[in-house]
Amino acid sequence: MNNPSWLSELTFTDRGLIPVIAQDANSHRILMFAWMNEEALIESVETGRAVYWSRSRQKLWRKGEESGHQQWISEIRLDCDGDVVTLIVEQVGNIACHTGRESCFFRVLKNGEWHVTDSVIKSPEEIYKK
Amino acid sequence: MNNPSWLSELTFTDRGLIPVIAQDANSHRILMFAWMNEEALIESVETGRAVYWSRSRQKLWRKGEESGHQQWISEIRLDCDGDVVTLIVEQVGNIACHTGRESCFFRVLKNGEWHVTDSVIKSPEEIYKK
Repeated sequence: MNNPSWLSELTFTDRGLIPVIAQDANSHRILMFAWMNEEALIESVETGRAVYWSRSRQKLWRKGEESGHQQWISEIRLDCDGDVVTLIVEQVGNIACHTGRESCFFRVLKNGEWHVTDSVIKSPEEIYKK
Repeated sequence: MNNPSWLSELTFTDRGLIPVIAQDANSHRILMFAWMNEEALIESVETGRAVYWSRSRQKLWRKGEESGHQQWISEIRLDCDGDVVTLIVEQVGNIACHTGRESCFFRVLKNGEWHVTDSVIKSPEEIYKK
């Protein structure tokens, strides 16, 4: 299979990965940061659903495959150096974080301490129950 | 000098770096992606001005030191794993990218091609003239 031509603009790391930032289409919040390899990126573009590369599990991670919290991509952008990608996504369930919060970035630095600003929308036990 | 206690929540890479995403306080656009080391992060927090670690030049990069396009930080967030940081910034000149555009993410994928969506606000020649 030939790679799509748009892929030639991208630079991957030595490990074949590219950093990806997902931003919510509605709240405009940055939801999460993860990595993709070529295969994940091509599948994301072709299906419109965010697919990452899980570095801990060393396999494709179809976001929401366990939690149900898929991300539907409305926009894909590339930076000036061609080595970082951003996604604008519709976040199913308004939960991107495995802790059950909207965003993984739920801690803010104030007066020298990290403060949790987001409440848990759905508990991890409930999200990941079998 | 003792490190501030908030730093102990963070996990840096093997090379002592942490990825940082800067988002514009007004347009909410993702402006750029870069890296910080401990020193850069501490200086950023203490001065309120974004200081990155330049991997190509292997030194601190006080954003705007040449271009004048500093970033003033209004919020610093940390993700669930403690290994990615986001900044909300007031971007001086509304230009974060070295190409003279608001955002480094000025290309969008449409119909299998990258399209430039942002115009150049100020040419690099004018920005970086001595």
